[in-house]
Amino acid sequence: MAAKSCHSFFKQKIMKKTVFILLVLFAFVACKDNGDPKTELAATTQGVMDPLPSWNEGPTKSSIMEYVQEVTNEGSAMFIPVSERIATFDNDGNLWSEQPAYFQLFFAIDRIKALAPEHPEWKTTQPYQSVLENDMATLMTFGEHGLIQIVMATHAGNTVGEFEQIVKDWLATAKHPRFDRPYTDLVYQPMLELIYYLKANDFKTFIVSGGGIEFMRPWVEEVYGIPKDQVVGSSIKTEFVMEDGVAKIKSLPALDFIDDKAGKPVGINKFIGRKPVFASGNSDGDLQMLQYTDSNSYESFQLYLHHTDAEREWAYDRESSIGRLDKGLDEANEKGWTVIDMKNDWNVIYPFQLEK
Amino acid sequence: MAAKSCHSFFKQKIMKKTVFILLVLFAFVACKDNGDPKTELAATTQGVMDPLPSWNEGPTKSSIMEYVQEVTNEGSAMFIPVSERIATFDNDGNLWSEQPAYFQLFFAIDRIKALAPEHPEWKTTQPYQSVLENDMATLMTFGEHGLIQIVMATHAGNTVGEFEQIVKDWLATAKHPRFDRPYTDLVYQPMLELIYYLKANDFKTFIVSGGGIEFMRPWVEEVYGIPKDQVVGSSIKTEFVMEDGVAKIKSLPALDFIDDKAGKPVGINKFIGRKPVFASGNSDGDLQMLQYTDSNSYESFQLYLHHTDAEREWAYDRESSIGRLDKGLDEANEKGWTVIDMKNDWNVIYPFQLEK
Repeated sequence: MAAKSCHSFFKQKIMKKTVFILLVLFAFVACKDNGDPKTELAATTQGVMDPLPSWNEGPTKSSIMEYVQEVTNEGSAMFIPVSERIATFDNDGNLWSEQPAYFQLFFAIDRIKALAPEHPEWKTTQPYQSVLENDMATLMTFGEHGLIQIVMATHAGNTVGEFEQIVKDWLATAKHPRFDRPYTDLVYQPMLELIYYLKANDFKTFIVSGGGIEFMRPWVEEVYGIPKDQVVGSSIKTEFVMEDGVAKIKSLPALDFIDDKAGKPVGINKFIGRKPVFASGNSDGDLQMLQYTDSNSYESFQLYLHHTDAEREWAYDRESSIGRLDKGLDEANEKGWTVIDMKNDWNVIYPFQLEK
Repeated sequence: MAAKSCHSFFKQKIMKKTVFILLVLFAFVACKDNGDPKTELAATTQGVMDPLPSWNEGPTKSSIMEYVQEVTNEGSAMFIPVSERIATFDNDGNLWSEQPAYFQLFFAIDRIKALAPEHPEWKTTQPYQSVLENDMATLMTFGEHGLIQIVMATHAGNTVGEFEQIVKDWLATAKHPRFDRPYTDLVYQPMLELIYYLKANDFKTFIVSGGGIEFMRPWVEEVYGIPKDQVVGSSIKTEFVMEDGVAKIKSLPALDFIDDKAGKPVGINKFIGRKPVFASGNSDGDLQMLQYTDSNSYESFQLYLHHTDAEREWAYDRESSIGRLDKGLDEANEKGWTVIDMKNDWNVIYPFQLEK
């Protein structure tokens, strides 16, 4: 499935339930200066329009909406100027699923197998060896850092344009092992609504992910509506080359930056240059991003997604090798951050479930 | 002069001549979806409204406006979708002056003198020694790279917030040696108009500068209307620290990235993730950025500013140690890129001259 048709497919699925809401939100985004945010928010409060229809009523949804209403209200002591409304979202396990393994890992496995003949040393070097031996259990022990190593190592030598096409070709054909659907079908409908809700309220939304920046950029724009230049992630080094008079950027087999844990606030400062007021994540790898946001002198919002739904998605937290949420959960409880209980707070997980 | 009052001052100066045009442009930017770009462009062509009033009529101005009109015309074979309309601008010598030395160098000199007691080794180490001895001639021989070294070395140990305040305090008091005005007064009025013109036509504008990213971010938003997260520049490494439970980003005394020459396309790819269609620079340090833009499959525009006005600004090119334009000028001539002849193409240089 090409990115284009993926987008069309995605749009079709969500249309049945949320088309009206999204159209209204888009209208505000498209011409925010002519819209009246107060009218919109008042309508929402009165239940006339719900910008977060896939979120069940309750303290989680209320805390998000009350925050947004307060900080966008010029008369409030919590008012935040538009230029300071920076919202950052982790990607894996936060905007789309990350089980039974990071989706980028499935991509990397296919790439490693395709590239293995050129790299005989991988047969005896971890974590490559476990990939080639289909030994997922061993592979998982290397965690997100191991994934980053694998992915970065397998991306070298391509131009940016070539790699973008490789990712799009993979997304067009690969299927998730449990749901037998394209990976981009496994984005969270409630989080899409949250992104649009924040955008409609003049927040500038960024992805801040431990995943590879060049793996995300080919598709996040169409799937999340977040521009390529608003994606912060891990990266490998690149170089500028002139080949036959044509300027190109090529990837090099060396890590440039790991955008995880303490790297997330560093990446935010480097790319965004401003402390977020709203941060959303799901693992201990996001903790420093939430701590950094929490230190904002403006009223800030920290949101953790707790995977509690083994039936519709997955349930995991303190013991998981993927997306472990342990210290973060303690700190969220201690500091009163908002924690999404996926099972109880979301009435829909994926856009394709809106069909039912 | 604080950044806030600087902005007010700046706005006041340009008001006399361009207030109408800017208001019209802002209207298009503020609500582009309700505006009709075709009407705007037709009006411009017929001379009803001139979005570039500080540019003299002639081939330079025409080439810019014809390009913008073509690529924003949906009926044209040269049409470029909004998401691909990325415009990148060098800063030093391109959006503001860079003589008799990079303005960041004047800032760095003051910082080095202030920090010298803590660094006795600087007395005998270049390029610091020449700074402390007020030996500008020697200092100049180290070029832009030397400047970057100096600046980066003097920024370590501050938090991002502290450094932002140091820059703002300096801008509030420091005066340019020739014009005896705040440095932010020496931005180019014609380039401000060009930035607004491109923004009004749905281009996303970025600064891509060899200068330090954290030196630019505190003021470019107010002076150019370019958000902090659309600034690409040289940088030093930073680290995330928790001090007394408060999360901070601190600068480290180590270079992270030099955004100059071949570094510019690398920085563009890293931060923006998309090849620009419009690139504007003034020196050989911008050549690779223009080459990279020139390789775009969409119709692209390369703009060089040639400093030819010794009376109103400065005249320098092939032999200058600052902002040397030599290879770039040859390549511009060879490839038919547009070269601004400052003396003949601009009827005003700085906003404060609009008073006259």
